[in-house]
Amino acid sequence: MRVLGVDPGLTRCGVGVVEGVAGRPLTMLGVGVVRTPAHAELGHRLVAVEQGIEEWLDTHRPEVVAVERVFSQHNVSTVMGTAQASAVAMLCAARRGIPVALHTPSEVKAAVTGSGRADKAQVGAMVTRLLRLAEPPRPADAADALALAICHIWRAPAQNRLQQAVAQHAQHAQHAQHAPKGRTR
Amino acid sequence: MRVLGVDPGLTRCGVGVVEGVAGRPLTMLGVGVVRTPAHAELGHRLVAVEQGIEEWLDTHRPEVVAVERVFSQHNVSTVMGTAQASAVAMLCAARRGIPVALHTPSEVKAAVTGSGRADKAQVGAMVTRLLRLAEPPRPADAADALALAICHIWRAPAQNRLQQAVAQHAQHAQHAQHAPKGRTR
Repeated sequence: MRVLGVDPGLTRCGVGVVEGVAGRPLTMLGVGVVRTPAHAELGHRLVAVEQGIEEWLDTHRPEVVAVERVFSQHNVSTVMGTAQASAVAMLCAARRGIPVALHTPSEVKAAVTGSGRADKAQVGAMVTRLLRLAEPPRPADAADALALAICHIWRAPAQNRLQQAVAQHAQHAQHAQHAPKGRTR
Repeated sequence: MRVLGVDPGLTRCGVGVVEGVAGRPLTMLGVGVVRTPAHAELGHRLVAVEQGIEEWLDTHRPEVVAVERVFSQHNVSTVMGTAQASAVAMLCAARRGIPVALHTPSEVKAAVTGSGRADKAQVGAMVTRLLRLAEPPRPADAADALALAICHIWRAPAQNRLQQAVAQHAQHAQHAQHAPKGRTR
């Protein structure tokens, strides 16, 4: 599975591509940051984020895009920009028919460090180890994007099993409904 | 001046086009709502908002897009969707080179009713009167989109004068800087 992780932001939008399956060593295919100038108009910044994300999608053709789920409880001054950048990332993926998965910051931290309250340094250290990198990716947004992709790859099997179970249950329920009434008793 | 007003939202995104200049009667060219199903995936909803906005831009070719400025202090459960829908509207406009203007809800209310704390009914009543409509546009999101467009048309002259003054000041400053030093004293 090839996943593009996106740590959304207007000033710095972290992007990282990881390939692999749960239970096997993972490979980093790319990491970077899409930046937009703080003094530019909001509309132009969103266009720049869109162009950046499109380039990453073109280059790496991910099967899934994992985006950090934004909460409004966060820092009030930055949360709007984060929500807007995440909307652009989700839009770019959905437009191409690429599934979008959202993971909360604590899900991501728990996935890569074992603790939902790990700090940036700990996340960076584990990303470096899990992807066998020479040093932690900089800036932190880039490391967070890789952590998101890793989190998705590791959580996906459990989510898929859950989805399959739900689908089977729905199918059984439908069969039961459509079965001839006289004979099911 | 032809303005597309956008009252952003994921479930209902109000859109309204008004043409006119400050101090003259205004004309409504169109009003409506872009809706997306609440049960759909977020990415798909954003794509639906994009398609809806694109259609309005194609049909009405506005010179400016006026979008409600979203604050994170608002209702926490809806503010993320509002921020994301507004990002899509701004992106669509900026991608076409159409200027985007943001106005706060109280600026809009003050512009059309005289009070920044007017309620929805009051805004609807004034929009109906100012655009000489037979009845208030429904739902309220549609009326709010028209109010945004009206607000922009009425505020634009003041904003333009301000921008011109700033530009002239900058030009004067530049002239002063580039003037031969010996002769300016």
